[in-house]
Amino acid sequence: MGNILHLSQPVRIFARASAVGYDEYRGPLGPYFDFHDERDRFGADTWEKAEGELGRTVLNLALNRAGIPHTALDLLLAGDLQNQCVASSGGLATFGLPYIGLYGACSTFVEGLVCAALALNGTVDLFRVGVVTTSHNCAAERQFRLPLEYGGQRPPTAQWTATAGGCALLERGDTGVCVTAVMPGKMVDGGIKDAANMGAAMAPAVADTILRYFGESGDSPEDYDAIVTGDLGREGSAILADLLAGRGMSLGGRHKDCGVLLYDPDYQDAHAGGSGCGCCASVTAAHFLPMLERGEARRILLMATGALMSPASIQQGGSIIGIAPLAVLEVKE
Amino acid sequence: MGNILHLSQPVRIFARASAVGYDEYRGPLGPYFDFHDERDRFGADTWEKAEGELGRTVLNLALNRAGIPHTALDLLLAGDLQNQCVASSGGLATFGLPYIGLYGACSTFVEGLVCAALALNGTVDLFRVGVVTTSHNCAAERQFRLPLEYGGQRPPTAQWTATAGGCALLERGDTGVCVTAVMPGKMVDGGIKDAANMGAAMAPAVADTILRYFGESGDSPEDYDAIVTGDLGREGSAILADLLAGRGMSLGGRHKDCGVLLYDPDYQDAHAGGSGCGCCASVTAAHFLPMLERGEARRILLMATGALMSPASIQQGGSIIGIAPLAVLEVKE
Repeated sequence: MGNILHLSQPVRIFARASAVGYDEYRGPLGPYFDFHDERDRFGADTWEKAEGELGRTVLNLALNRAGIPHTALDLLLAGDLQNQCVASSGGLATFGLPYIGLYGACSTFVEGLVCAALALNGTVDLFRVGVVTTSHNCAAERQFRLPLEYGGQRPPTAQWTATAGGCALLERGDTGVCVTAVMPGKMVDGGIKDAANMGAAMAPAVADTILRYFGESGDSPEDYDAIVTGDLGREGSAILADLLAGRGMSLGGRHKDCGVLLYDPDYQDAHAGGSGCGCCASVTAAHFLPMLERGEARRILLMATGALMSPASIQQGGSIIGIAPLAVLEVKE
Repeated sequence: MGNILHLSQPVRIFARASAVGYDEYRGPLGPYFDFHDERDRFGADTWEKAEGELGRTVLNLALNRAGIPHTALDLLLAGDLQNQCVASSGGLATFGLPYIGLYGACSTFVEGLVCAALALNGTVDLFRVGVVTTSHNCAAERQFRLPLEYGGQRPPTAQWTATAGGCALLERGDTGVCVTAVMPGKMVDGGIKDAANMGAAMAPAVADTILRYFGESGDSPEDYDAIVTGDLGREGSAILADLLAGRGMSLGGRHKDCGVLLYDPDYQDAHAGGSGCGCCASVTAAHFLPMLERGEARRILLMATGALMSPASIQQGGSIIGIAPLAVLEVKE
C-alpha cells in the first residue's frame, strides 16, 4: 500500500495570494499579506458572507498576479470551516468554474494541493487548477463556540481561528516552485475530547504523517530547509516534539508552525496560536512560497493539520480525529 | 477550457455496496440493497453516529464483495451532510486509511467518483480507491430543519433525506463497469431561496451539466441507456425537462432520478422524492451498477445533484447554489 504519491508529471505553483483581517495584519507577518481589511468585513454585511468575500478576494488576487483571467482556470478546489462549506460555495459560485468542494477542517489547503497535484498529474484535459481556503474568526467563533457578544473565557490551550484566506494556482511544469510528491493524511484518533485543545488532537496525526514520510522516503529532516505544520499552535507543537522524541526523531529548529507564526505571543492574545483553514493557506502563500521563490529555501515539507469534529460530535462524547496531509515543495530550475 | 475530462487510463468499478434504513427497505428497490436496519440505528446510540456506522457498513460490505482486506485500499474519499462531515470521519477513522474528505452536498457520491478517477488516472503509486457517502434522515432532519419530535408539516416540493449509504471501489482496468470520462459540476445559482424546494435549486445545474456534456461530446441522449440524476425528485425532474425543452432537448424515458426511484409515491409519504448523499450512492450501487454488470445497460450517464446551502446561509438571505458532477459509466469487455 503506497503512502507517498510520486508525481509522474511535475506540477508547479505558478501564482499565490493571501488576504487577512486586522489581527493578522497586526501580527509579525502583517506586511507580507497581499490584502487586509481593518474591519474584517470585506464589504459584506455578515461574518459568514465576509468569509466568502475573503475567498473571492484571494482568487482574484492570485489571478491578477498570474496575469490571467478566471476563465483560464479549468477547476477550482476549495473548502472552509462553515457548516456545509458555504463560504466557499457562496464566495466562488460567480466565477462559473468547474468546482470540487473539500472538507479537511484546517487541513484543507494542503488537501487541496494534494488533489490538484493528483488531478493535474494524469489528466490531459486539465491545465490549470486553483486551490482556495478560508476561515473567519467571527463566523467560526459563533458557529463552534459562543456568541461573540458573550466574550467567553478561553483556556491557554485554545487557538484563535484566523480571519484569513489563501490561494494557490497550479499547472503542469517543472520550473519554479514545484509540488514533487504528496501524501494524503490518515485519520488518527488520539482520544482527545477537549475542543479547546485542538493542538493535542492533531499532533498524533502529524507524527503519523512525518514517521510514514521519512520511513518510506529514506530522507531525514536535515534534507529539508523547513518542516512546516498548519496550526498545531504552541501546545500541539510541544506535543509533536515529545511524540517524535519517543521515536528517536527531532525536527529541531526546522519545525515551523503557521499558527505560531501568525500572531505575536507578547502583544496579541491568541493563546496557543492561530488555526482555521485560512491559517496554513495565508502563511504559506505570504511567507513560505515567497521564501522558495526568492531561493531562501529550496525544499519544504508542508503539512496542514485538521481536527475532524463538530459541536454535535463533541456533545455526543466523540473524540476529535486529527489528520495531516503532506505536500513536498521544491524549487526546480 | 476543457469541460469533459477524458481518462488516459481506464478506471473500473470493481465492487459496490449499499445499506439503507427501514423506509428505504420498504420502497420499490428494497430487495436490492445489501443491508438494512429496521430500526435505522445501525447499532449506534445517536442518529449522528448511526450515519457513521452506515458508512462503515457499506465499506465493509464492498470489501467483502471484492474479497479483499481494507488494507488493500490506498485511499478513501468520503463525505456526508452532517456539519463538518463528522459521519464520514467518525465512521471511517478506524480503517486507518489515507483519507480525503469531500463536500458536495447530495452530489458527493459522483464528486467522489470524479476525484477517484482523476487520482487513479495518473498516479502510479495509487492502485485502489474507495468512495463512501452516507445520509441519515433523522440526523439531517434535526440539523437542517426541525426537532424530530415536533413532526413539522412539509410542503409537497420538499424531499425526504434518505437513510442510506453507498460505496464504490475503483482501480485501473479496462474490463467490466468502467468510468470512461468525468466532468466536475459548475456552481449554478438559479436564485432559489426556498430550502423546501431543493429540486428547483438543483435543476438548473443539471441542465448546465447536460448541455455542456452533449455540446462538447457530440453525443445525443439516444447514445445512453439511461441518463441518471441523483435527487432532483419529481419537482426538480419536471423543471429539468422544461429547462431542456427550452433548449430543444428531450431526455424522454431515458431520464431516471434516484430520488424518484427510492420511495413509492402511493404508499410512502416522501413528498417530491428522496435526497441526501446516500440517495444517489445507494440507488447507483443497488440498481444501476448491477444493471451494467448484468448487461441490461451498456452506457449510463450518471449525475449526482447537490444543493450548496446551510441553515445560516438561508437565514441570511442567500440563495441555494446547485451543482451536478458527471461520470460516464460504460461496460467494457
